[in-house]
Amino acid sequence: MEVLLKAGERVDDLHRNNYQIIQNTEKFCFGMDAVLLSGFVRVFEREVVLDLGTGTGIIPILLEAKTEGKHFTGLEIQEESADMAKRSVSINELEDKIDIVVGDIKEASKIFGLASFDVVTSNPPYMNHSHGIVNPAAAKAIARHEILCSLEDVIREAARVLKPNGRFYLVHRPFRLIEIVNILSLYKLEAKRMKLVHPYVNKEPNMVLIECVKGGRSNLIVEAPLVVYKEPGVYTDEIYDIYGY
Amino acid sequence: MEVLLKAGERVDDLHRNNYQIIQNTEKFCFGMDAVLLSGFVRVFEREVVLDLGTGTGIIPILLEAKTEGKHFTGLEIQEESADMAKRSVSINELEDKIDIVVGDIKEASKIFGLASFDVVTSNPPYMNHSHGIVNPAAAKAIARHEILCSLEDVIREAARVLKPNGRFYLVHRPFRLIEIVNILSLYKLEAKRMKLVHPYVNKEPNMVLIECVKGGRSNLIVEAPLVVYKEPGVYTDEIYDIYGY
Repeated sequence: MEVLLKAGERVDDLHRNNYQIIQNTEKFCFGMDAVLLSGFVRVFEREVVLDLGTGTGIIPILLEAKTEGKHFTGLEIQEESADMAKRSVSINELEDKIDIVVGDIKEASKIFGLASFDVVTSNPPYMNHSHGIVNPAAAKAIARHEILCSLEDVIREAARVLKPNGRFYLVHRPFRLIEIVNILSLYKLEAKRMKLVHPYVNKEPNMVLIECVKGGRSNLIVEAPLVVYKEPGVYTDEIYDIYGY
Repeated sequence: MEVLLKAGERVDDLHRNNYQIIQNTEKFCFGMDAVLLSGFVRVFEREVVLDLGTGTGIIPILLEAKTEGKHFTGLEIQEESADMAKRSVSINELEDKIDIVVGDIKEASKIFGLASFDVVTSNPPYMNHSHGIVNPAAAKAIARHEILCSLEDVIREAARVLKPNGRFYLVHRPFRLIEIVNILSLYKLEAKRMKLVHPYVNKEPNMVLIECVKGGRSNLIVEAPLVVYKEPGVYTDEIYDIYGY
């Protein structure tokens, strides 16, 4: 398959079904967060999935490779990222399985309609205005900071587009866990499964993975911790497994 | 010091300041939960502390040994437990430092007044009516199930008796974490520090330790996990350290 690359772009192997992804190191590349979220998400046969803020399309592409889901949609507001995502869908010949839609997370329920997905995923911007310095390169800033949408926008739209008993999967930073839980509860998304990701076994977690059920009952399973490094530079077996090496 | 023991009671060494505690294996003995909570709690000089549902007084006695706190009060509704706690205070000659009060958690703010403590601790009943079978031995059932008070009663009274910026420390079960966070937020207790306790490093946590600040800002630190066992029957160094061996 011939690949149309623009200036500054590169193609990376995803170690799943020989899939590849187009990225631009100057603008935005996917992180471990997206890969770990795709390892945490459960998608069953016949389910349709929406990824809110899909960037270069990493989550729909990995979920298509890893699950039996019927169809995947990625919503992305940045034209340039969405364009890379569309070309990645093409090089992997996934046009029948994955749609990339250019649009605003805040309008997801208007774009797709209420109760239209079984599963919603999101690796949203982590930082709000009171945290950290806004990255001056706009593409990265929009992906990392709540400039165009807030945590509440993401959760509200996820709740609206999910079918009853649909599942929402989120990766975020532990320092915002209390806000996350409160907003999820406000929109009747009940957290059922949580996993903390620790760089080392004896270090604070730097990511949290959450599975919610729309309208579910209160009963959380906190899973065993996911540890990234055995020693400096050496991933644990679980990480190699999620990455597909 | 002569010890007055009643039928079925025994005296255990606490490995701190040569302190001892009176317990009754037929009624209720303290668990690892209370010990780990006492290791998680921070009490500074001149601070006054209230333990809601103190049982045999384990938490005030351990905190008196481990911290520079000025005074400790244990509130307990069960006369028999409170009586053991009072005799344990006596055998350790701590009458000037620890008061044991017989009373209902639901009335804590009436008993002690609003904004009267710097620190509140609690190892409350974990199980609500939808979880588990109620223990037929009343003393144990009251300690373990929300028969005489609910989680919301404990949190509401903690919030009321705390001074502004006072700290609330809770040990509970992870499966109720979402409810805990929502109720804490309702009463303006902001969770600032959380630690999950895992029996083994690769197992789900079975306890959660939380520090909240009354009126604090949203910013949670999830700490490194606390792991109990290195291998079956062998505690980790951290556990030996908390127990004071």
